[in-house]
Amino acid sequence: MADVVEKERRILVAVDEGEESTHALSWCLKNVISENSKDTLSLLYVKPVRVVYPAPDGTGYLFSSDILAAMDKYGTDVADRVMEKAKRMCKDLNDVKVETRVEQGDPRDVICQMAEEEGADALVMGSHGHGLIKRALLGSVSNHCAQNVKCPVLIVKKPKSTAANI
Amino acid sequence: MADVVEKERRILVAVDEGEESTHALSWCLKNVISENSKDTLSLLYVKPVRVVYPAPDGTGYLFSSDILAAMDKYGTDVADRVMEKAKRMCKDLNDVKVETRVEQGDPRDVICQMAEEEGADALVMGSHGHGLIKRALLGSVSNHCAQNVKCPVLIVKKPKSTAANI
Repeated sequence: MADVVEKERRILVAVDEGEESTHALSWCLKNVISENSKDTLSLLYVKPVRVVYPAPDGTGYLFSSDILAAMDKYGTDVADRVMEKAKRMCKDLNDVKVETRVEQGDPRDVICQMAEEEGADALVMGSHGHGLIKRALLGSVSNHCAQNVKCPVLIVKKPKSTAANI
Repeated sequence: MADVVEKERRILVAVDEGEESTHALSWCLKNVISENSKDTLSLLYVKPVRVVYPAPDGTGYLFSSDILAAMDKYGTDVADRVMEKAKRMCKDLNDVKVETRVEQGDPRDVICQMAEEEGADALVMGSHGHGLIKRALLGSVSNHCAQNVKCPVLIVKKPKSTAANI
């Protein structure tokens, strides 16, 4: 609608390393974001919290500091790759401002908190996002956000062509 | 985006008598539908199934046929009012085709089925839709749809100004 093109909106997109997240961002770019609008697209990646296992004998931790540092580096590399890919997908937007943010924590809490903090006009995310096993443990991230975020939530599934591979 | 304006999409909006549903349709009109696009907006209202209570002595039904007819008429009147209001909200759309459809059944099943049957590109709905008591009995309609519909699902909450009245 004519007045929408002029309206400044803030769209928060939760991205991760999954295909569904890529598809969610792509759907959002095609169907929600107006190329020449003054929208702000905020890309959020939530790094999972590092679990520190104490050694069974209580004398220290199961992993050496080298291994922990390697795990942290891996987490940072993944975050960088996810953000680079997301930014590449947004490169054709003209007046849309693209912001990126990497946070650490439980994605359910962090995404809800960011939507609130940023005053997002809408939250866009894939429907699973965090893999079958994590989802079983955590409950679906998107379900949680749909129930707890105040702004409209757009949940995008994997496209049909790849849905058969789930 | 320029090519999106030309793209024909089918957006299914589940409407009901609640404020949240009105807000969901309004948000969709402002943020998803392009006024001059060739989008089709499909408005769906699902009438709840009439529950027929057998009389405790098993000799017939608890309500007379007059009462049942009055209940049916009430259901039809509500459906008409909801659809009229929804159509009025869409009256300023130029090239967008607006279709209406009233079905009867469990809204969770009917909405999912219609999204599939119509090949919707997106489903838009309020987050509660069917009242606190029914929601507790049925489970959240929007949750169910977000999990079971293949297309992107946009769940819109009540606006903040009225959220305090929930």
